[in-house]
Amino acid sequence: MSDLTGPSSALLTDQYELTMLQAALHSKAAERMCLFEAFGRSLPAGRRYGVLAGTGRFLEALAAFRFGAEELGFLRERGIVDEDTLDWLADYRFTGTIRGYAEGEVYFPGSPLVTVQAPFAQAVVLETLLLSMLNHDSAIAAAASRIATAAGERPCADMGSRRTQEDAAVAAARAAYIAGFASTSNLAAGRRWGLHTIGTSAHAFTLLHDTEREAFAAQVAALGTGTTLLLDTYDVDRALTTAIEVAGPELGGVRIDSGDLGIQAAEVRARLDELGARNTKITVTSDLDEYAVAGLAAAPVDSYGVGTRLVTGSGAPTANLVYKLVAHVDDSGEWTAVQKASKGKASRGGFKEAVRTVDHGVATEEAIGIPALPADVSDGRPLTIDLVVDGEVDDALTGPPGVKRARARHDESMAELPRSAHRLQDGEPAIPTVYYRA
Amino acid sequence: MSDLTGPSSALLTDQYELTMLQAALHSKAAERMCLFEAFGRSLPAGRRYGVLAGTGRFLEALAAFRFGAEELGFLRERGIVDEDTLDWLADYRFTGTIRGYAEGEVYFPGSPLVTVQAPFAQAVVLETLLLSMLNHDSAIAAAASRIATAAGERPCADMGSRRTQEDAAVAAARAAYIAGFASTSNLAAGRRWGLHTIGTSAHAFTLLHDTEREAFAAQVAALGTGTTLLLDTYDVDRALTTAIEVAGPELGGVRIDSGDLGIQAAEVRARLDELGARNTKITVTSDLDEYAVAGLAAAPVDSYGVGTRLVTGSGAPTANLVYKLVAHVDDSGEWTAVQKASKGKASRGGFKEAVRTVDHGVATEEAIGIPALPADVSDGRPLTIDLVVDGEVDDALTGPPGVKRARARHDESMAELPRSAHRLQDGEPAIPTVYYRA
Repeated sequence: MSDLTGPSSALLTDQYELTMLQAALHSKAAERMCLFEAFGRSLPAGRRYGVLAGTGRFLEALAAFRFGAEELGFLRERGIVDEDTLDWLADYRFTGTIRGYAEGEVYFPGSPLVTVQAPFAQAVVLETLLLSMLNHDSAIAAAASRIATAAGERPCADMGSRRTQEDAAVAAARAAYIAGFASTSNLAAGRRWGLHTIGTSAHAFTLLHDTEREAFAAQVAALGTGTTLLLDTYDVDRALTTAIEVAGPELGGVRIDSGDLGIQAAEVRARLDELGARNTKITVTSDLDEYAVAGLAAAPVDSYGVGTRLVTGSGAPTANLVYKLVAHVDDSGEWTAVQKASKGKASRGGFKEAVRTVDHGVATEEAIGIPALPADVSDGRPLTIDLVVDGEVDDALTGPPGVKRARARHDESMAELPRSAHRLQDGEPAIPTVYYRA
Repeated sequence: MSDLTGPSSALLTDQYELTMLQAALHSKAAERMCLFEAFGRSLPAGRRYGVLAGTGRFLEALAAFRFGAEELGFLRERGIVDEDTLDWLADYRFTGTIRGYAEGEVYFPGSPLVTVQAPFAQAVVLETLLLSMLNHDSAIAAAASRIATAAGERPCADMGSRRTQEDAAVAAARAAYIAGFASTSNLAAGRRWGLHTIGTSAHAFTLLHDTEREAFAAQVAALGTGTTLLLDTYDVDRALTTAIEVAGPELGGVRIDSGDLGIQAAEVRARLDELGARNTKITVTSDLDEYAVAGLAAAPVDSYGVGTRLVTGSGAPTANLVYKLVAHVDDSGEWTAVQKASKGKASRGGFKEAVRTVDHGVATEEAIGIPALPADVSDGRPLTIDLVVDGEVDDALTGPPGVKRARARHDESMAELPRSAHRLQDGEPAIPTVYYRA
């Protein structure tokens, strides 16, 4: 959990988890060992792949999942659960084992992204915390991955903080970085996750001064000629001439935030070159998404700033992952697979083994064995790692190092996908999910 | 700011605000008195009205907008701003005046929702914090308002926490309540904002037990016959019979979470009545939005639980509000209106006076005078109140009392809109925005 989100994460929880806990403590089923699984029934419509993100944040939040005096006082005062349940919560420590796909990994329908193996009482209360983090962060990472793919070698910057909830913005910057973004405008994310931050000026700075020239001169005087000047407050052509007059041909960059970006970029590039500012970079930033970025591939743009569409998942603002009980130990001591039969929402019970089969370096199948894969399939790339073993979090997966590792994982997994995964048009998942039953 | 979001809100800020500050301190423009305005250029496509939410959270966060040793240390270490700027930030206190629409008020394109009047340096650094809160909360409130309107007298519960970022979930519960929701599943929101919380059990609880009957018996034993039993884990008909056998006809409620909800609700109601459980309530909860809720108007449903579509703004996950400099005092001491001319993103400079004209109790116009309205229009209902005067926040607008007040404001403003505002189909804003220039 980000240090911005305070000391306890325990009430970031839906009430039904605690009422279920109370009922299970009462029926003695609370101590039944269980396996919960987080997965998506499908990808958002038309998407070729998903990107798992949020795991590292969850592992940090798990340590802060403690019911202290304040949390317990609230639950008691409202009569949400009884005293026995409050006593149990006061001692809450997660002692189970959590496995899952590595953060940054790409996924497909049915991929068993995270499994929580623990007594029912310990596992049931983590549903909301886990899903909130995975659903948000994975939605942003998937959008970021498509945008960064469309941008190719050109760097993308997250500038979306103003369009989403303030703490979600910090998580979004992290998810975008994992999925290939180069930087963020968000300072809290920069501090918390060690991300590169960027930003120079907005239209307000130009409007504050009596003339655009005064504004540019003030910015260059304070921030140096390496700064990026914003051109479209009044008239781009005039602004560009002024910019080079003020900063000289060594001006670091210019930004265009409105109009037809492709045409503008071409005109600005030609004019910059004419003025001798051949190394001045062009950044564009107006309502970009993966389609707009792809449409600018032939334009002389050096980098993209992406806001609204990034932080809202580019049409898919949640990954729609769910957390379901898939097995428990019964009174005879045996694991039993369980699954609901709800219309349109059926799930697949049982333990699962997941690998990605790869042929000549290209992924071919998301192979899921229930409970295990046959020998000829099981030599695919294993997808599941240990996240928490007997209550011990793998610290390499949290904090800034966890973010770097997740970014590397994303890079490698993307490189392995078939080319169809990179198509932006709506289509089927890039590889099929195939189930193998023993 | 929610007490879950920690001690300082100062880094929930885009870097460009601080670099602009540095440049303005350098050019001496930093102390120019400015007027910034938050507004939306348009409503999300097809929407008839917007709902302002987030103001109370912003007023709380303003008090926590302080650059302490940690924040300053980060900015210094990264070299984001110079020492003069760090010194200035260390003393940051907002001493200006903020006015705006009351939280919960409905709004239209161009409505001047919040204005910040302060020296440039003080006002420019608040852009991200203000917009993040308003954009998110207003998006959720607008969706909630449409859903609650479609539900009519039947209560709606927010169950969306698992589908959005964990802190955004807390804010979403608050925004939904302001716009007419009755309750939330989110415990942190219940504690922080005094909201009514709800929740009983999920499919996992049924699956945990060897039979559905054991699960229902355990739930009733622990939570009483007033509880709500979830029917669709296996077979709704059989579950219903079991539920009444276990709990008796005094069972509080049943929940259906899959299938054709209208048909299921009718069948369940008939069967409940047949079994003598005439007072047992029916809650439905599967992927509802305003259209699905409207489609269930004739079905015997008692309440709705709404998740994904609520917390993602039902297709409009951000309100797309912007924060623009609209006036400043120039060297002669006079206020000067300023506005950018960017293609497709032009803004209207200057001070504004906003009223809603009302004819026989029905709103007719969002009347905006620049800078003031003519006498025959100015007797409309004034829309702007003081939020912060000379740095002093109006405490009546924050915390749980602020939420209650905002809900009342929303109710009253909705009652005043023409009937066309309640149509769910895409259309034009319910009333036109009309500008009057002196």
